[in-house]
Amino acid sequence: MGFEFKITAQDGNARTGVLQTAHGEVQTPAFMPVGTQGTVKAMSEEELKGIGYRMILSNAYHLYLRPGHNLIKKFGGLHKFMNWDRAILTDSGGFQVYSLATLRKISEEGVEFQSHIDGSRHFFSPEKVMEIQEALASDVIMPLDDCPALPAEPERLRESLGRTVNWARRSKEAKTRDDQWLFAIVQGGTDLNLRRQCFEELHQIGFPGYALGGLAVGEEPGLRAEIIAAMQEVLPADCPHYLMGVGPVLECLEAVKNGIDLFDCVLPTRNARNGQLFTSQGKISIKRAEYSEDESAPDPECDCYVCRNYSKAYLRHLYVSGEILGVRLNSWHNLYYYNGFFERMRRAIANGQFGEFSRAEQSRLGTEEKCSTG
Amino acid sequence: MGFEFKITAQDGNARTGVLQTAHGEVQTPAFMPVGTQGTVKAMSEEELKGIGYRMILSNAYHLYLRPGHNLIKKFGGLHKFMNWDRAILTDSGGFQVYSLATLRKISEEGVEFQSHIDGSRHFFSPEKVMEIQEALASDVIMPLDDCPALPAEPERLRESLGRTVNWARRSKEAKTRDDQWLFAIVQGGTDLNLRRQCFEELHQIGFPGYALGGLAVGEEPGLRAEIIAAMQEVLPADCPHYLMGVGPVLECLEAVKNGIDLFDCVLPTRNARNGQLFTSQGKISIKRAEYSEDESAPDPECDCYVCRNYSKAYLRHLYVSGEILGVRLNSWHNLYYYNGFFERMRRAIANGQFGEFSRAEQSRLGTEEKCSTG
Repeated sequence: MGFEFKITAQDGNARTGVLQTAHGEVQTPAFMPVGTQGTVKAMSEEELKGIGYRMILSNAYHLYLRPGHNLIKKFGGLHKFMNWDRAILTDSGGFQVYSLATLRKISEEGVEFQSHIDGSRHFFSPEKVMEIQEALASDVIMPLDDCPALPAEPERLRESLGRTVNWARRSKEAKTRDDQWLFAIVQGGTDLNLRRQCFEELHQIGFPGYALGGLAVGEEPGLRAEIIAAMQEVLPADCPHYLMGVGPVLECLEAVKNGIDLFDCVLPTRNARNGQLFTSQGKISIKRAEYSEDESAPDPECDCYVCRNYSKAYLRHLYVSGEILGVRLNSWHNLYYYNGFFERMRRAIANGQFGEFSRAEQSRLGTEEKCSTG
Repeated sequence: MGFEFKITAQDGNARTGVLQTAHGEVQTPAFMPVGTQGTVKAMSEEELKGIGYRMILSNAYHLYLRPGHNLIKKFGGLHKFMNWDRAILTDSGGFQVYSLATLRKISEEGVEFQSHIDGSRHFFSPEKVMEIQEALASDVIMPLDDCPALPAEPERLRESLGRTVNWARRSKEAKTRDDQWLFAIVQGGTDLNLRRQCFEELHQIGFPGYALGGLAVGEEPGLRAEIIAAMQEVLPADCPHYLMGVGPVLECLEAVKNGIDLFDCVLPTRNARNGQLFTSQGKISIKRAEYSEDESAPDPECDCYVCRNYSKAYLRHLYVSGEILGVRLNSWHNLYYYNGFFERMRRAIANGQFGEFSRAEQSRLGTEEKCSTG
């Protein structure tokens, strides 16, 4: 593979970088909006590009079930099917098989499951999941992993870890395209020793990037932060680090401080649909009666299309009236906010001011809520 | 009022014109997308402008109930509230009071009704409805009318007609702004004599524009066409003629042939949400399995954003996945199709080729379904 990850600046353990892909470069740290079903909910590709996004996340499990990866392959890949010519990372579906599907049977060979849509039976092996993602032609692909429900017995955890490593090896062997990054997923729950061991075994196989999986699934944020901090000393500095499914901006900030480069989360889009807006002053719930006559923009410091043209009162009216434009504008603003936050992180790192930036954001935003991928 | 309606070309009884408003000129014949609650469903103002729309319809009844006309007045009017700086026509709410609200009591004074949202009690007099529309600051406003459910006894019809005329007179007297057109609404059901009589009485009061109301409410399209054709000889040629709530393009075509200038209908947006697309080849239902692998654009002759960038298969995927982007793209295409159809009608009239245009469209589109406003 001729693609590189170049680190362009460093401030403590935080760093900025450029991830090269077959669909352009991605400046890191980067937040990826989630487009589970081949569309970032309520957004157009023009709007996503206008905001500045260079990479989105989609999902092998969902696209395999509907409309089918072979259909997408026939269209020349997911980029062409969904009209997005920038980078795409696809998750393998390991997490979705365990969280959405009715699980039938795990074996060393793979996992048999029933579709959450129609109950039909399917079988995912690591090789099948590679075939799916090669058909999708996404730019970064993930191997199938074994994600046991937590809490789990130590023996089940060790088994799942061994399987995750073995499946990662088989994924690497099954890979045929040279225009896709294959990251490995480090599991191990909240047990740091298991996490380290998992990473070591994956590292012996050798991957160009590593993801921390199995976090933001209900564990304490403090414990999650400890694991991320400890893994900073373990993950190779020169390759991309991806923290799966974590989205509250202050948690992203902490993770960036510990060398994380890539993020994805449904938080900005899902919460937009529920009327929650992220602003420079913290979160606001647009449905509240106090905004019914509020002529001010959702975020006084924001210069996005929504904040330049619409009042809180109008957004509240759209929300209470159940209008789609409300979902659109809320999603647009939240994704603009997220992109801006990451831009500001990158600038602060490049200027050697990440510590100051962190303290300022922490003092003004307070605590953010947890997030898990869907 | 310093605004004019200028007829710019004539072909038989079909004509092109320019309606001047406080928010720009509108080329007629014109189709107005429906934005009942202060938003054309699923569309942004940028998209509507990009398509070419210069006038939309909104609704006094809905905006009075939510968010309230006084709130909108405080914002400087509906244009500013909803971020639309082109023309707006507001319907008076007469039709909605009878079709959506629980009707309590009609008297000569006005109509008492209960909100369809929360059951609260309200009273609309012609004066109140003028006050609401002056607060909204829309560019064309409509008087409250009495719309009896059909079929009705001749006596009830005559009563409603007398009341509609009387309420129109009171509306004209109550009007204080000089930057709004006040059209009169001609009622009379499917009885041509009543229609003529209603018009004559309204004409004696004197209005700068006339609307045909109470059509597209369940009567036979053939009967509707007869009334429209007959009213062509009755309505003053030099003022704008508005056919309320009729949307199938072939019916619009027939109406334009009979001198109608303005149209509104929920058809392009409502049907978009149900997966129906209007194309140069006729209507298609994007949910059909036959499109699941169809790489072609929804309409091979269309150059809209949707048809340039998306396949039927992708639109079908969005529809069956329940994705908002599907509703957006379907609405966008349908509104583009409608605007294009009206542009082509205007061009044909200006070129003296409206007869040929009509025959060509009729032969390729066949029959279209009926439409009623909501």
